[in-house]
Amino acid sequence: MNDLLGQPLHVINIGIASFSEPIRAAGAGVTHLDWAPPAQGDRALGDSLARLMRHSEVEQANEQAFAAYGAASPVLEGVGIARDCLPGMQHGLILHAGPPITWERMCGPMQGAIVGALLYEGWAADAADARSMAAAGDIAFAPCHHHNAVGPMAGIVSPSMPVWIVRNAQGGNVAFSNMNEGLGKVLRFGANGPEVIERLHWMRRVLTPVLQAGLKVLGPLELKPLIAQALHMGDEVHNRNAAASGLLLKKLVPALLASGAPTADIAAVAGFIAGNDHFFLNVSMAACKAMLDAAADIRGSSMVTAMCRNGVDFAIRLSGTGQQWFTAPAPVVNGLYFPGYSIADAAPDLGDSAITETAGLGGFAMAAAPAIVKFVGGTTQDAVANTMAMTHVTLGRNGSFTLPALDFGGTPAGIDARKVVDTGILPIINTGIAHRKAGIGQIGAGVTRAPLACFTQAIAALARQVSV
Amino acid sequence: MNDLLGQPLHVINIGIASFSEPIRAAGAGVTHLDWAPPAQGDRALGDSLARLMRHSEVEQANEQAFAAYGAASPVLEGVGIARDCLPGMQHGLILHAGPPITWERMCGPMQGAIVGALLYEGWAADAADARSMAAAGDIAFAPCHHHNAVGPMAGIVSPSMPVWIVRNAQGGNVAFSNMNEGLGKVLRFGANGPEVIERLHWMRRVLTPVLQAGLKVLGPLELKPLIAQALHMGDEVHNRNAAASGLLLKKLVPALLASGAPTADIAAVAGFIAGNDHFFLNVSMAACKAMLDAAADIRGSSMVTAMCRNGVDFAIRLSGTGQQWFTAPAPVVNGLYFPGYSIADAAPDLGDSAITETAGLGGFAMAAAPAIVKFVGGTTQDAVANTMAMTHVTLGRNGSFTLPALDFGGTPAGIDARKVVDTGILPIINTGIAHRKAGIGQIGAGVTRAPLACFTQAIAALARQVSV
Repeated sequence: MNDLLGQPLHVINIGIASFSEPIRAAGAGVTHLDWAPPAQGDRALGDSLARLMRHSEVEQANEQAFAAYGAASPVLEGVGIARDCLPGMQHGLILHAGPPITWERMCGPMQGAIVGALLYEGWAADAADARSMAAAGDIAFAPCHHHNAVGPMAGIVSPSMPVWIVRNAQGGNVAFSNMNEGLGKVLRFGANGPEVIERLHWMRRVLTPVLQAGLKVLGPLELKPLIAQALHMGDEVHNRNAAASGLLLKKLVPALLASGAPTADIAAVAGFIAGNDHFFLNVSMAACKAMLDAAADIRGSSMVTAMCRNGVDFAIRLSGTGQQWFTAPAPVVNGLYFPGYSIADAAPDLGDSAITETAGLGGFAMAAAPAIVKFVGGTTQDAVANTMAMTHVTLGRNGSFTLPALDFGGTPAGIDARKVVDTGILPIINTGIAHRKAGIGQIGAGVTRAPLACFTQAIAALARQVSV
Repeated sequence: MNDLLGQPLHVINIGIASFSEPIRAAGAGVTHLDWAPPAQGDRALGDSLARLMRHSEVEQANEQAFAAYGAASPVLEGVGIARDCLPGMQHGLILHAGPPITWERMCGPMQGAIVGALLYEGWAADAADARSMAAAGDIAFAPCHHHNAVGPMAGIVSPSMPVWIVRNAQGGNVAFSNMNEGLGKVLRFGANGPEVIERLHWMRRVLTPVLQAGLKVLGPLELKPLIAQALHMGDEVHNRNAAASGLLLKKLVPALLASGAPTADIAAVAGFIAGNDHFFLNVSMAACKAMLDAAADIRGSSMVTAMCRNGVDFAIRLSGTGQQWFTAPAPVVNGLYFPGYSIADAAPDLGDSAITETAGLGGFAMAAAPAIVKFVGGTTQDAVANTMAMTHVTLGRNGSFTLPALDFGGTPAGIDARKVVDTGILPIINTGIAHRKAGIGQIGAGVTRAPLACFTQAIAALARQVSV
């Protein structure tokens, strides 16, 4: 009676979906399992991957890198001026988001922001002058990451700009970030009109000394507990920083009021911070960089220590390969666009802010921030699924950053480039979307993925480094 | 072959669980379905309930009550002194949480808080004197609810205390609440030592005028959008008010700094608010009362307009039965106790704060606040399940208060006493737990349920009112 061959046929088809069709046409049932060979079937890469997957040197290096990331304790130490703080910062140098890029190849918002920076510094008389200088090679450009810094969107840092100073109290390494200007017409989206430049001057003239006075009273502020609290309040501290910004303000206000700073200035600063739910983003980014730099330069480690975009190229760094960038074209984000805009208006993915995902926050911690789907799209189930998917490509969970919706499990962290290439599951990034023309500003937000090509190159390079 | 009687026997047993046993003993399968007849099998009550369940007068009254609750727009108008604001407030009168109760029957924390209030007012020379006065009948006691007010835990309001003033901009009704003192040794848990009394004086002397000055600059503050935002930031605005308190502070700080109040006072007030994540609770309670009072006194309505506890009795009001209280013994809460304490140390459930659940917040909005399970117990799945369970005993969902974890569905609101009696599903309440002795303070928190007996009495009374 229970003869196997006498039963109706049901086939499990693994891999190429089109193989299902003839079976179905012949009347049998088919269950299709989506699968592709590791390394997309590239034999040399597959060999490298296989060698790295259980290599004791890589395993030990990753253990060490992940432990250093986990032990890091980023502390907000203060606010300084870029030229006084950033190693190698000098006159005529402008830092930008993402990997190295020439003026000619830069996207619209980045060029616009650089024009603004030259006006702010007083190096150019007007926008045309600024463009000529940049095109003529009178200005040096370098990634923020080359100077221990990170910046969202265009990520421009010029010598006179104020920067957050975040020290890893555990390892001693220091990371910097520029300051958040708010939404609307702002430099980081390429706007460079008079109100943008005036705001930047106000930030140096008023915001900086008031924050310096307040932070002096407050003392070094531990950022991991603050971020952990924000994760319990619906932030993922990349595109949603409402709680974290409020928590920072709550810490700052009593200190500001005890600092002796002029009341009118405190009022202006408190109003500025209270009016910008993204104010904490740049602090979050510097904290993430401080945690990840602690894990950098460990020979053999396949842990990703940076992901960033300049609006043209997407790039990553591995711990084991140090300062080397592995780049691929930056994707254009198919997200939620503000009324009147579409994907045709979008600049490709832009900014150093994917450092938050690299540190297990942002898209990786999306389960903490169900309300963000109103901003980046999808459902709250998607938010949880995105976090869960990242457990397949990470080295572990960060017990300091727990996610209530996952019964207080830690956020998946420490992207393992091997696992990305092996599974084809690409790191998820919550991102703002800039108009491709300078100065129009943010036109949407969405969920995107890091390009696989960055990870395959990184694995190939790591394989060359690691002995058999 | 497929003869029904030839198959193995599997029985579905509905109702009395013990009937399953003999069947199981005889070797057959049993699936037990937990069920009890409506109104717990009380025939007269069941008849009343059946009559009320589809009664057009009740349906229309509930529609009207729920609409008035939904349309209400609570606005924080200011801060005043109880004797100047509360209708009927006078010398020698002390208001307390819950339904009416005599001094002799009061629980420890409530007696202790009253002693503190008499010291604060200067009516008694010391604690012994205060107890003698209270026992001798020299002091009049009345529920906060009888004077348009609500207070958490002991809920004591004496004539010189500052109160929040919340007006329903839609209906014009006004609700009041006392102010939150923070945690630790505080009057609302029955503490009455010198530091408690001194803090109360400071709240009247410094906190009150500074808040008055700030709110004058700020203008009337709409509370529904603020509460809605807090629900997206992990609060349920009863036992978790971290986000809401931060949002209120963020609104207040720029206004305070523009108010001309002395900087030292602003610093003290900002520090006080920043140090108390429960600061918003009392504002939330007044807002809930303002929304629910808009739905009160609609003849025939079975909608619950108040739930409260005095530490001895639990009581509810229905819209259709106006000011009448339906009481039952207050439960002792089997919650999460702080180290060193147990349920043996607990006072029965206490405080007017269940007004938040009555308005669809607190335990009803627990799905918004997964992190609260660390405080009240259970898992994040329980939090979602609790909210979902409340959809069975409510008149609708409040579209102004959406819950991200439920794909932005509104919170279940407008408790229908008919549905409670019909289903036996009891309204859930997130609550703090006070030590049964005065002044020891909070010893835990937990999830409890409103007693069924309040609802059966209410239904019986409503049935007498509504014509056949």
